[in-house]
Amino acid sequence: MNELIIKGQMAKMASEFLVTAREEEKNRALIAMAEAVYENSDYILKVNEEDIALARQNGLSEGFIERLTLNPLRINAIAKGMTQVAELPDPVGTYISRDKRPNGLEIEKVRVPLGVIGIIYESRPNVTADAAALCLKSGNACILRGGKEALGTNLALVNIMQEALVKEGFPKGCINLVEDTSRETATALMRLNEYLDVIIPRGGAGLIRAVMENATVPAIETGTGNCHVYVDKYADLAMARDIVINAKTSRPSVCNAEEKLLVHSEIAERFLPAMISALHEEGVEVMGDERVCQISSGAKMATEEDWGEEYLSLKIAIKVVDSVDQAIAHINKYGTRHSEAIITENIQASQKFLKEVDAAAVYVNASTRFTDGFEFGFGAEIGISTQKIHARGPMGLTELTTSKYLIKGSGQIRR
Amino acid sequence: MNELIIKGQMAKMASEFLVTAREEEKNRALIAMAEAVYENSDYILKVNEEDIALARQNGLSEGFIERLTLNPLRINAIAKGMTQVAELPDPVGTYISRDKRPNGLEIEKVRVPLGVIGIIYESRPNVTADAAALCLKSGNACILRGGKEALGTNLALVNIMQEALVKEGFPKGCINLVEDTSRETATALMRLNEYLDVIIPRGGAGLIRAVMENATVPAIETGTGNCHVYVDKYADLAMARDIVINAKTSRPSVCNAEEKLLVHSEIAERFLPAMISALHEEGVEVMGDERVCQISSGAKMATEEDWGEEYLSLKIAIKVVDSVDQAIAHINKYGTRHSEAIITENIQASQKFLKEVDAAAVYVNASTRFTDGFEFGFGAEIGISTQKIHARGPMGLTELTTSKYLIKGSGQIRR
Repeated sequence: MNELIIKGQMAKMASEFLVTAREEEKNRALIAMAEAVYENSDYILKVNEEDIALARQNGLSEGFIERLTLNPLRINAIAKGMTQVAELPDPVGTYISRDKRPNGLEIEKVRVPLGVIGIIYESRPNVTADAAALCLKSGNACILRGGKEALGTNLALVNIMQEALVKEGFPKGCINLVEDTSRETATALMRLNEYLDVIIPRGGAGLIRAVMENATVPAIETGTGNCHVYVDKYADLAMARDIVINAKTSRPSVCNAEEKLLVHSEIAERFLPAMISALHEEGVEVMGDERVCQISSGAKMATEEDWGEEYLSLKIAIKVVDSVDQAIAHINKYGTRHSEAIITENIQASQKFLKEVDAAAVYVNASTRFTDGFEFGFGAEIGISTQKIHARGPMGLTELTTSKYLIKGSGQIRR
Repeated sequence: MNELIIKGQMAKMASEFLVTAREEEKNRALIAMAEAVYENSDYILKVNEEDIALARQNGLSEGFIERLTLNPLRINAIAKGMTQVAELPDPVGTYISRDKRPNGLEIEKVRVPLGVIGIIYESRPNVTADAAALCLKSGNACILRGGKEALGTNLALVNIMQEALVKEGFPKGCINLVEDTSRETATALMRLNEYLDVIIPRGGAGLIRAVMENATVPAIETGTGNCHVYVDKYADLAMARDIVINAKTSRPSVCNAEEKLLVHSEIAERFLPAMISALHEEGVEVMGDERVCQISSGAKMATEEDWGEEYLSLKIAIKVVDSVDQAIAHINKYGTRHSEAIITENIQASQKFLKEVDAAAVYVNASTRFTDGFEFGFGAEIGISTQKIHARGPMGLTELTTSKYLIKGSGQIRR
């Protein structure tokens, strides 16, 4: 707890420095951070090996260890990511609106940093560097709280980045890592209203639920994706098959992967047998509702839980619906408001779907896998917001800012 | 609790209707609501009298009763307010950005309603009509929970508005009033994540604290204003005096009123005696720090608590500072990030103040009283956000919307 107050104060002071930092200075700091990480690769890899050894001792899964593991390639990617952030345009100081009121007041609305951002994440050390770089570029100090298994690696990364920052004349409090990885301290961080302006959880559904339940600091919910593809009766069925395979299998562990397939009843018999075979060929386990199971013996009977579950693996559940309205109602009931797609050549169906589906990103004739800061052209992202306030969908640098009204008068008073 | 679930479901269904409602339809409904309120003035006033009688019986203060009271003039203003909302441009469906990616995907970012908005407020019945109108125009269903002393009046208003809505073909679930005014039900409303997309408290510091502490629904903090005016050494002192009097006395009970006065030490002896006399003439109680008390016997010694307190009355605390930096540091420590003003003819001082003061609205040479949706040209406001995410400062119709990415492809898959 004491650690949080000290780091909260350091972050707050650093954020007051950052609010006046120029873009060129921030870019120079980012490049220095990237170079320092790159130059210290050997040290980082050694520390990371120790984290991995401990994780193995503690019997953590291979998937977990895979996410925890750094190698020269990944360190290069981390350093390159930071230089790329340096190249992105700085949103701070840009005008959102300008107005002159009849009473002569000039009202400007400009982008300013949020202040201090808390980020709670799991055991992928690259998040440490990505988040620190995005926060710095947008003029924010950050307090990072990564998974306990990655503590050694995260600490090495943060120390190296801080040293580079200090050499460039920045306070080291721009980037802070919480070293007490207890659950109690994580909860205290979510309630650190005196120092934090916003908290962003990055990770699985359990972490996000804990933040939404416990945080008193304004939070931005990210990244749960129970995404659907709906194949309409007017779909190009070959296109539909390609999109379903891509959305489901190109990277099943991520939040923009397809989890559910809805198929219009008029084309179900024509479309599903080949679709299910193709999914099987890709190693996908197929669940289906009654009608799907009648059409194909390749599907196992889905339960009510299946419709709400985010599998994040090579598994899909398929349902037959009788109309675009039924598809929309199903998605709005079971979806997580992330990414939803319709495959159709019919303009009414696509317009209806775009308008009525309640999600951050709604697609016509494309894979849900495109919901991503890079694919949207933002250059980088801190996460994908699935809530409605502040930001929705991929969050780039702009979403790490807030606004401020600057009002210039000449003695105006209100009558 | 059961009431909340029923009203939550009704609001959710209504919000699905509203998402497809056209601007003309919404405007027609608003005008019908305004007419219905106007035509039922006598009934509303009768019910309001009963609420007032009960409030008097329960020994509530005159200030409280003043806020609870309706009269023909106030009902006219309520009805007129609704027709004015009808005249405002509808933000829903407007484009925030449009982009065509190299892979041919067309990405549009458009404004859409938030969905269902919860509003918790105290005993001013006009909030019931204002909030309902703003939510409806922005395509949102609302669940209103007003103070228990205004329940009769609020229920009368909501019933009249619902009837008008139904005649115009809208579901009555567009506007819902929570009739169980217990504290437990208010807390349950703050945690009604299944149905609510956002919750907005409107009222005093205690209410806002309760929402920030208990809500699991994303909340927007509004309306606490410990606002400062800083009179720099390069100020036009006559202008400064007029602004201080206006900011402090024109409406002391509102959140954009001045609560604190900071004065540069080099002009303090010249400025303060006349300033304090002028404040006294307006009936303002003056507190001061040691230096202020040395300069003028008209000030009583302020305590540490004074600097953080929002008086909301004819009371002010004055402090002498030695630089613009000290003024900024004091404001960033004690302010509530609402509205802050500098009075100066010096460009460096004003630039520094604009950049470094952390608040929704920062003024140069104007009264803090202008922080208001009408004064900013939004036509109306649902409240003034003092948090940094989603909206900052006066919240108009645009701030009651979120965004949605609409992505049109021709079979794109992600490599």
